[in-house]
Amino acid sequence: MHLAMIDDKILTIEELEPVYLDRGTFFGDGVYEVLRSYNGKIFAFEDHLNRFENSLSAIGITSVKIDQIRKRVQTAFDSAGIANAKIYFHITRGSAPRNHTYESSLKPNFFLTVTEIPDDTEEKAKGIAVSTYPDLRWKRCDIKSLNLLANVLARTDAAQKDCAEAILVNESGFITEGASSAFFAIFGKILCTAPLTTNILPSITRKYVIQTAKNIGLEIVEKSITPEQAKDADELFIAVTTKDIVPIVKFDNRIIRIGKPVKYTKLLMKEYLLLTK
Amino acid sequence: MHLAMIDDKILTIEELEPVYLDRGTFFGDGVYEVLRSYNGKIFAFEDHLNRFENSLSAIGITSVKIDQIRKRVQTAFDSAGIANAKIYFHITRGSAPRNHTYESSLKPNFFLTVTEIPDDTEEKAKGIAVSTYPDLRWKRCDIKSLNLLANVLARTDAAQKDCAEAILVNESGFITEGASSAFFAIFGKILCTAPLTTNILPSITRKYVIQTAKNIGLEIVEKSITPEQAKDADELFIAVTTKDIVPIVKFDNRIIRIGKPVKYTKLLMKEYLLLTK
Repeated sequence: MHLAMIDDKILTIEELEPVYLDRGTFFGDGVYEVLRSYNGKIFAFEDHLNRFENSLSAIGITSVKIDQIRKRVQTAFDSAGIANAKIYFHITRGSAPRNHTYESSLKPNFFLTVTEIPDDTEEKAKGIAVSTYPDLRWKRCDIKSLNLLANVLARTDAAQKDCAEAILVNESGFITEGASSAFFAIFGKILCTAPLTTNILPSITRKYVIQTAKNIGLEIVEKSITPEQAKDADELFIAVTTKDIVPIVKFDNRIIRIGKPVKYTKLLMKEYLLLTK
Repeated sequence: MHLAMIDDKILTIEELEPVYLDRGTFFGDGVYEVLRSYNGKIFAFEDHLNRFENSLSAIGITSVKIDQIRKRVQTAFDSAGIANAKIYFHITRGSAPRNHTYESSLKPNFFLTVTEIPDDTEEKAKGIAVSTYPDLRWKRCDIKSLNLLANVLARTDAAQKDCAEAILVNESGFITEGASSAFFAIFGKILCTAPLTTNILPSITRKYVIQTAKNIGLEIVEKSITPEQAKDADELFIAVTTKDIVPIVKFDNRIIRIGKPVKYTKLLMKEYLLLTK
């Protein structure tokens, strides 16, 4: 008899809820998105849907209609009635007995949560400390997949060092991005961030940060820098959907300049919010 | 109101079964093992438990007692009453609202299945075709984690080419291992396989293949080879828990020698089975 066991409970495979056979759990065989709303309005909705469509296509999940996803997200957001909401959703390839290969008829699983974004005024006013960690991730970080154990290990290490984010450093000694954010350094009037490759997520917040930076007259240079160069920057910050821009005031225990958010970062934070109105 | 959505169904976060908040799905934050039995006897049980303990430790899941896992596996195996069984089990860090970092009090989730191993006499007698695929995996493949999307993509590509396994090739052009197997080449009386590093799973079948090869007088050389070198080998095979040794007779469309399992591979298959008695 084929059987399953959940903790200490034995049951037949037939009695199992399909969620226990989700390829998302067996293989991380799925992709996700995180959106947020500002004052009741979802920000960059189409950007996120486009990226999600790219992620689905990259792993060969072809049966999902983006219009259906758009409707589900809007329905859930409307039902929740949260002004400043974080919307997380993923699609996995489906549920089936564990086997790397799969039937093309498999029905994808959709899962979503809407939660309230906690107030981060203080964090943004004071800035955060970050620490570096080796970039152990796979070679297709441009796909927003459920394979995030390297990110978990990095964030866990950062938390143990009382840091709010881990900044990932590749084997060549260059910063790629944060474990769950894009990374930026300002030198004079130059805004520096790693170029988009298959090793980096095409961050939507990054895109709007760059647009904002151009608006305020900064020059954009897409190149990777080392942790040593980062420590000597005039300003550092991360960018992430749920918090937009968060200043970094400490990098691997080195206090950055005066240890407080300054000039361009503060201006970028203010200007970025205009996009969200 | 914080809410969740499963396909088209909306419910509150409180109504969700914990399995929907499994960090195994959100992050692949868990580790697994696959064991098999031969004629009612689990093979290399302690080897698998030791490796599982190493995997748990490597990702910082510290609250699991291996003795409890041993008992669960034995109980499930005994209940199933399958002589030639495949036993899959995983532990994830637990269920909680999605956040990379976690409370140390989180209770790990255990899941196991026992299924019958299909007869593979014909496959082993005829040998299999394999195809190469880029090794896109993360940098800690020595941890048997649930982050397996790169393996799924590789196996999917192989299946589309009517191949039974994908052989992974790293950025330097060397073969690391199969997407779900160890890889071996025989040149004369030399058995060649990649050395164990953080980029390769410490395969238990590999260990016993090496032991068997020594018993029959082969010389073991742990070094990586290229696909071109593999095509010129005298014999090729993969090794995997559920099937032990499976001869490769076609590699990227090139027929290997006479296109049938030969000499040492056949001898190794026979000798390996003696270990399982």
